[in-house]
Order: sequence, then C-alpha cells, then structure tokens
Amino acid sequence: MKGEVNHMEANFMESLNLTIDGNRLWNQIMAFGKIGEGDNGGVTRTSFDQKDIEARKYFLNLLEQADLSPYMDAAGNIFGQIIGKNPELPAILIGSHLDTVNSGGRFDGAMGVLMGVEVLCTLKEKGIQPERTIKVVSLTDEEGARFDYAFVGSTALVGNEGSKLKENLAAATDKDGITYLEAMKQAGLEGEYFNQINPDLLEQAQVGKNDVKAYIEVHIEQGKVLENEDLAVGIVTGISGGEWSEVTIMGEAGHAGTTWMKERKDALTAAAECIVAIEKIARDNIGSVATVGKLEVKPGSSNVIPGRVDFTLDVRDISNERRQNTVTKIYDSIRTIAANRGLGCEIRQVQSLSSVMSSPIVMDAVKDSLQELEYPVYELPSGAAHDAMVMGELTDIGMIFVRSKSGISHHPDEWSSFEDVALGCEVLYRTTLKLL
Amino acid sequence: MKGEVNHMEANFMESLNLTIDGNRLWNQIMAFGKIGEGDNGGVTRTSFDQKDIEARKYFLNLLEQADLSPYMDAAGNIFGQIIGKNPELPAILIGSHLDTVNSGGRFDGAMGVLMGVEVLCTLKEKGIQPERTIKVVSLTDEEGARFDYAFVGSTALVGNEGSKLKENLAAATDKDGITYLEAMKQAGLEGEYFNQINPDLLEQAQVGKNDVKAYIEVHIEQGKVLENEDLAVGIVTGISGGEWSEVTIMGEAGHAGTTWMKERKDALTAAAECIVAIEKIARDNIGSVATVGKLEVKPGSSNVIPGRVDFTLDVRDISNERRQNTVTKIYDSIRTIAANRGLGCEIRQVQSLSSVMSSPIVMDAVKDSLQELEYPVYELPSGAAHDAMVMGELTDIGMIFVRSKSGISHHPDEWSSFEDVALGCEVLYRTTLKLL
Repeated sequence: MKGEVNHMEANFMESLNLTIDGNRLWNQIMAFGKIGEGDNGGVTRTSFDQKDIEARKYFLNLLEQADLSPYMDAAGNIFGQIIGKNPELPAILIGSHLDTVNSGGRFDGAMGVLMGVEVLCTLKEKGIQPERTIKVVSLTDEEGARFDYAFVGSTALVGNEGSKLKENLAAATDKDGITYLEAMKQAGLEGEYFNQINPDLLEQAQVGKNDVKAYIEVHIEQGKVLENEDLAVGIVTGISGGEWSEVTIMGEAGHAGTTWMKERKDALTAAAECIVAIEKIARDNIGSVATVGKLEVKPGSSNVIPGRVDFTLDVRDISNERRQNTVTKIYDSIRTIAANRGLGCEIRQVQSLSSVMSSPIVMDAVKDSLQELEYPVYELPSGAAHDAMVMGELTDIGMIFVRSKSGISHHPDEWSSFEDVALGCEVLYRTTLKLL
Repeated sequence: MKGEVNHMEANFMESLNLTIDGNRLWNQIMAFGKIGEGDNGGVTRTSFDQKDIEARKYFLNLLEQADLSPYMDAAGNIFGQIIGKNPELPAILIGSHLDTVNSGGRFDGAMGVLMGVEVLCTLKEKGIQPERTIKVVSLTDEEGARFDYAFVGSTALVGNEGSKLKENLAAATDKDGITYLEAMKQAGLEGEYFNQINPDLLEQAQVGKNDVKAYIEVHIEQGKVLENEDLAVGIVTGISGGEWSEVTIMGEAGHAGTTWMKERKDALTAAAECIVAIEKIARDNIGSVATVGKLEVKPGSSNVIPGRVDFTLDVRDISNERRQNTVTKIYDSIRTIAANRGLGCEIRQVQSLSSVMSSPIVMDAVKDSLQELEYPVYELPSGAAHDAMVMGELTDIGMIFVRSKSGISHHPDEWSSFEDVALGCEVLYRTTLKLL
C-alpha cells in the first residue's frame, strides 16, 4: 500500500539516527489523510464541515492519548501542550492547520500540526520538562476553501480588533448561503471542547505579545525549488503577502439565438477578457502571481447570454510594492474592459496581507539544527501564504519547508517522502530545543 | 398591478372587433406566469422539476375545464383537441412549450400554448365543428435548461429512431447528476395523465406524416425587429439552425501562490482565451451568433489554479453553410489554444439542427389573415430555435412572431403588450380557420 512504511525506509531512518519517531509520525499523517478522502484520493476537509469536525475530534483524542492537555479556544483553534516549569515565560508555539482545499493533499497543513505533536511526544518520552511551555496548535481555516475567507484561527490569535474578524465572518458565506458565524455556532454544539467555540467572544482567543516567544511552522514547499536543489528541507526567509478580491461583472442576460453579437452585453465574454488580461499583467510583472480560481456564471443556461459573472482574484508577491502595482494594474484593466463593453463592474477587496520576513532567532535555530545533522543549509522564500505570515504580527516566526514531489499541492497527487518528512520533523525538534 | 387588464385596453380591443377573447387569454398568461415565479419576477420551470409538474397539472386542468379531451404521450407532451367530423384527415397542430429557462419570462413558450387553447375555446363557443381535428400541444422541454438537452417533445413526435433520443436522454444529467430518464420516470409517478410518460416507449409518441397537415406556433420575437418596425406581429420566413457542444479544457490544478505564471497549466485562463476567440469569430462571421452560457471551474477554490473547465457552446445561423464554417473555426481555435498552452481539450457535439424554412401554405394563410385585419404584412427570419424547426421534419410549419419589448427574453423583464398578444392570437385563429 502506498504510504506504508517498509523495512528499507525503516533502515534508512536508523542510519540517520534521528531523535523523533519517523514511523509514528508518518503513520499518523497517513491515518489523517483518510479523513475526508474522496474517490480520487483527494482530501476535503473545509472549515466546520462534517469531515473537518471529524478531524478535530480525531486530533483532540490524539492529544488526550499523548497526555498533552488539549483545549480549544473561541475561534476553534486546538492546542496541546507541555506546561513549562516556569509557565509565566513566553511559550513556544508549533503549529499549522488541519483544514484542506477541495480535493487537496494529505500533507498541506496536517503534516505541520502532526510534527508538533511528534516533537511534544518525543520531549515527554525523553523526560525533558522545559522551563517554558511548549504548545502545538491546529489553527482554524488556513485555506479559506469553504467561505473564501482564510487565516481565521491565526487572525483571532493575533487579535481581531484591527482585522474586523467578526464582521467579516458574518459576511462570509459558503455555496449554500451558510455564514461563517452560523457554521461556527453549529460546530459549538459538538460537545466537549467544541463548546468553547464562540464567535461572539473571539477577542478571548487573542494571545498577548508577552505570552509567546516564537511561532514555528513546518510545511511542504508546494513548489519545485527544493526538488531542483536535491534537498529534503530548507529554511524559509519570508512569506509573500497576498491580496484577495471578488469581482462582479454585470451585463444583460438575453436569448442566445436572437441577439446579434454587436448588441450583446455578455458578462462572461467580458470576464474572459479580464482573465486573459490578468494573466498577461502577472506574467509581465515578474515576481507576481495572479489567479482566478473560482468563477460563477448567471443565469447559467447554455442558451442564455450570461447576465452576471462573479469571480475571485488572488494576487501574491514577496515584494509588497510590486504586488500593489500588479493589483492596481489588474483593477484598472477590469474597469476599462467593463467600461469599453458598456457593462458594470464591482471589485471588493476581501483580504490583504503584507509580506512577512522570518525572524533571525528562529532562522538561526533552524540553521544550527541542520548543521548538527550535517545537512546542507538552504534558504528560500515562500510564495504560498501561511498562518506564520499572520502570526508575524504577534511574535517572531520561522518556517521549515519539506520538499514537495514535482511541486504539486492542493491536489490528490501532493506528496513528500517518508525520509524528507522524518528529517523535517527532526529539524523541528532540534530547533524547538534551541529556542527553549 | 402589472399585467391586469384595464378599461382602456378593453375598449381598445372592442374597437378592433376581434373574434378571440383577449382578456381571457391575457389573464391566463399572467396566471401561468405565477407558476415558478421567483423573487425577481423571473419564472423558472425546467423540465420535470416541481414547478414544471405544477404547470403541467394546471394546464391539464385548464384543458379539462374547456372540454378539450386532454391526453399526455410517452414523452410527456400534453395535447388538447377538438375532434374533427372526419378524424381521419390530417390534423392541424398548434403548439409551443410550457418550460422556461432559469429565471426567464412569462411569455416565451406559455403564450403560444395558451393561444392554442384560446383558439380551440373560440371555435367551440362559435359552434364550429371542423372537418379535421385541431390540437393544441405543449411540447416537452424546448429550452433544455435543466439537462442541457432541448426539443425533447418535438423530437419524440417526429420520431426518435434517427435522433437517438433515448440514448441522449440516458446520458443527459442535471446539476445534481440526475439523468433525463430518471426525471421522466419520477414524473410518471404523478398520477393520471402522467402515468403515460414512458421513456422506454418513446417511439409510441411518434406521429405519422399523414396524421398532421401543419404545425403552427406563435412565439414572442425575442429580438427588436418588430419593435423597430413598429409592428405588433410578423410572419416568420424560417428558423436558424443551431449546433450545441460541450467543451472540456484539462489543465493542472496547483497552488495559487507557489506556481510561477510560466509554469502554470491553468484551465480557466485557457478557457477565457477560447471565449474571447469564440466571440471574435462570431463577430467576424456576420450572421452567426455564438454563446458560452454555462461554465464550471474545478476544483473551484479561490487559491487553487483551475485544473479543469467545462463550458457549453451554442452557435446559430440561418445559413447552414455559414454556421458550419463558424463552428469549424471555433473548434479549430479551441484546439489550437489548448495545444499552444500544453493543455488537453475535448469537444463533444451535443445536438445539431439544420435551418428550416416556413411552408408557403402556412405563410399564405397568415398573410391572408393579416390582410383581412387590414394589418401590414411583414416577414422576418427567426434567430431563435423553436420546436417548429424540429416539426419541419414531420410536416408543413409556420410561425407568427409577436413584438417583444426591447427584444428582451429569457429574462424577468421579457414583455409583450396586451394589444400585441391579442392581435397575435386573432391572426392565429384566422390562420387556423384557413388551414381547415
């Protein structure tokens, strides 16, 4: 079976003489990948849906079994912990997320959370009781796949006054028209732990700047840089910021057979022209990437000229200035295309996050760990957004990337090897020890 | 209330001295528009959905009340009739359809069917018992809005051997994955009349060429020609044929943040380029119209590069040769765009109908009726497809167009005036008498 640890791999790990238990971690990742697995092998756990709830219950049970004193906060973030000898000291936070995109992979998110558990279990087994508290956290909704609204858990931890989090959660709806708040309240009825979820008291999830020393996240690279460099792990220098928007093009529905081409106000041909322009602008502004991932046509009959099209826009760049330039050009282009066709358009900015640089204290700890293991030190930026980007507003952050096979992610074929995952976790373990 | 007949209009009709009862017809059209009416005033009755079933029951009751001996056939076509003194003579068929697009108007389809009922009621009230049988027919699914498969009832009447109707109905699915056959079988459980619906015996719905003398259909124009000519009604010279296809573009899903623009295999940007090209080809081939009315993006998350896009293609032209040329150019263009981007594409032809010319015997009868009424005779082609196009394979056909306000159709604002509708029905009544 794909994913099962074989004898050769076990021998390989022995030769590396790792502290953490690579087999236990790997089997846990594979078991987790079964929750929400579809026919094509893709994993779907979108926030507060049935499979996400199932994953949360499984995770809480895992933390209980490992004696890691689990708790959930008002935003649905799930924590496990080893309480330090001196619990007043700022804690170390190791985290990632358990939610996925629609039909995503086994590693994106879950691997980082489960590595945190593995690190805490190893510390316990070694009888290490640290001075400061160490926590593992599964952050609510990093992907934003269900409500098109992401980073909910980390935003709540950082504090929601500035982010208008609650207001945004009240406005965000899924495809069935259920609001984020409604889904959270529903999840709150799932019993123990879940009854802490309370969108009316999100401010209670906020963590003080003096309560955390650093946030560390291990994640698959989701790109081909490490693969091309033939390296299992790398140190992340910073995370590209992003700007997320929703665009509506308003035309006029009409009969597909009787309306001459020159008389049409077709919202879809206008949107298509916008999408071609968006692609060109991002291609020309090298360093930026722009994506239209979701698009809805109304009324949506084969013999009716589309009267309205709604689509999402996702723009990222490590350079905040260049990203802003790309976004401005795209917005101008959409407005010009709509105006030239005599159509209406509306652009709503949904979320905007600045790029965040990794902290030297975390990067140095990762670097030292790699050198201890006599493994090459390699630095790279992250094109993908991560909770670490949001957590950067609260504390020092750092990330470790694990090689992704062919750079594929958000897809059933997403894959990282047993050896790479084990090595990544070992680096995380050693980094954590250095930050204690 | 919009739609209610006021005194002034009633006076106007008296001055015209019409045979048919314009008020009764108008109130019936308005009452019918309530079945499936949504919040925005749009009407949605797609084949064999709840509202379509409700409309069918209402219509059957109307035929019963009018003593028009209703019956349903295996394809779900509903007939009312006055049996002729010599029922062996080929019958006159007056028809149209009761289904609508999603959020369509009150007139498209229903007006033509209800005019047929009005003509038969008037004949009965005048004590006219014709030599040949006269039937009104509501044809199943002219629009194809639910299953993207249209002209089901008329195709069954013409005979389904050549059209592979049953095979196509087994393959056509709605957005919930329900096949046409399943929906028909479900409708068959609705009791009296409905128990005649039987997709396994569609050949029983076939009508012999010697059983019908002519098919006449009154329909709103769905264009602005009559409005621009300041005319209430016009004679249709012929109906544009159409070619309906489904296109799939296969790319590669991937992470919106980590995949450089030049590395992407984005199915949506490819589809957008295709849609822009389709618009340009149709604009250049003057006379052709091409529409992409439905488009689905997979996996459909804002932060995932689309891996697959499916869209519909609808091409019409009164010239069969020019339409074929447009379709060929579009297909070539789609294949070239996909190939240039290294993506896969698949084009499936769903339905193809040749243009059909109106029969001189019907056109002459309409012309004579207009002259009797001292109303201008005006001829125009139909850009929209109609059941009459399919019925042309079976018998002589003719159509009468009623002026559409601003040419709007397939939209809640679809509108024709009381006077225009009454005059259209009077012309139909007189045309029918001339064909007896």
